Amino acid sequence: MENKNIAYLGPKASFCHEAALKYFGNTNNFISSDKIEDIFRKVIHGDAEYGVVPAENSIGGIIPDTLDLFIQTDLKIYDEIAIEIKQNLLSKTTRENIRRIYTHQQSFYQCTRYIFENFPKAEFVESNSNSKAAIQASNDPESASIGPKLCAVEYGLNILEENISDYKHNETKFYVISKNTQGIFKKKSLVIFSVPNKSGSLFDVLKVIKKNRINMTRIESRPSKIKKWEYIFIVEFENSGDEGKNNKLLDKLEKICKYFDYLGSY
Amino acid sequence: MENKNIAYLGPKASFCHEAALKYFGNTNNFISSDKIEDIFRKVIHGDAEYGVVPAENSIGGIIPDTLDLFIQTDLKIYDEIAIEIKQNLLSKTTRENIRRIYTHQQSFYQCTRYIFENFPKAEFVESNSNSKAAIQASNDPESASIGPKLCAVEYGLNILEENISDYKHNETKFYVISKNTQGIFKKKSLVIFSVPNKSGSLFDVLKVIKKNRINMTRIESRPSKIKKWEYIFIVEFENSGDEGKNNKLLDKLEKICKYFDYLGSY
Repeated sequence: MENKNIAYLGPKASFCHEAALKYFGNTNNFISSDKIEDIFRKVIHGDAEYGVVPAENSIGGIIPDTLDLFIQTDLKIYDEIAIEIKQNLLSKTTRENIRRIYTHQQSFYQCTRYIFENFPKAEFVESNSNSKAAIQASNDPESASIGPKLCAVEYGLNILEENISDYKHNETKFYVISKNTQGIFKKKSLVIFSVPNKSGSLFDVLKVIKKNRINMTRIESRPSKIKKWEYIFIVEFENSGDEGKNNKLLDKLEKICKYFDYLGSY
Repeated sequence: MENKNIAYLGPKASFCHEAALKYFGNTNNFISSDKIEDIFRKVIHGDAEYGVVPAENSIGGIIPDTLDLFIQTDLKIYDEIAIEIKQNLLSKTTRENIRRIYTHQQSFYQCTRYIFENFPKAEFVESNSNSKAAIQASNDPESASIGPKLCAVEYGLNILEENISDYKHNETKFYVISKNTQGIFKKKSLVIFSVPNKSGSLFDVLKVIKKNRINMTRIESRPSKIKKWEYIFIVEFENSGDEGKNNKLLDKLEKICKYFDYLGSY
């Protein structure tokens, strides 16, 4: 694709920016956005044709904001893209001179053991994003930040140490969102639904999926926000090889759920 | 109870402190704790006999850290306590002078609409707790924070506006945690488990619960953190009237799950 407006989360050089560049290539117009909600808003109002939002991290889990916004809006999933998260220690100074470490909460979470073992005396300053942490580190001669290599390039820092995450398998999935699904039948589907408020309703819905020999790969729940302790469920499943059969399943689910939305196939 | 050591989340005057006071009465020794992890640690090491940790908010949903710590430790749920959350705008200045709003992520969630409508140009600074946000607001003359009235009293702020939550039914459930369950058979139970990595495994576990005519009230998932995109499930169900039948169900679940832990009845 080219010459499209694509909204992504965070300042320049965020992991989400990296994901957007990887998916769309760099011949497009990438729009930095402060909040996930802003990205949904831009796509709804046509200021962006696509948005790229974090869906789930393999360590930290789902991003609740993204699921809630799918519930609140009519936007769909156009595709999914995963990128490996490699955390690095970025600084203008040497290891011995680091007194402060600027870090995003998720990055801190992913590197806690490394940080405490290597910098037990450092002060930790929480930042809203990896990019902001890098900017702060570039303005503070006795500090470092944690984040992607792209941040080092973008904000003039050196990579003091590579791959400092405590976990070997650190990956984040992002959704490419748009007004419509891609309309192509792919490997997985995501649906959101609520069930009638009676005993066993959720199980009845899952039984329909199972009966169609379709494998549920994920189930999440989010508060309905309408009635206390009522939930909306988010289920991802592997599509069957047969598109017609899949469509019949969606029809069936729509009938038995109180609220139902098919978000897309990816 | 009296003269017990009870660890709770946040500085003095947090919602969690309020819940701890409500449950235990004020003739105990309440220990403020920075992180949910510290509370688990204090109970494990005997520095506190009980801990009070946030479990779930009716708007924002589950608290992932709490579930992850149940997975990582052997601590149990001794009981559950719910308190109504009333969010307020707290500040030393007037509405017109507010440039920054310090807010805990959960509080931000609960008041998003209010905040964007009333302070579209303000900068948002994420804090680890409502109390910390209040302390920050008390040190920044052009700011406000969001939180309980107790914070205004404790940190010398004025209540600029009461009840600013976007939702009428804002409630948080807290778990009272300890080394052992209360050993009393109550209304609900919570179990955590992982399932063998083959198609339909999760459904098979849920079928066992359903077969025993036991109603599943909640299902959550968290990343296993061991293998990428593998999950640990957290299921809450209403106990049957018959304790023996319930114990049989737990035995059965333990047999078919790869990993299984009964957290308690409350």
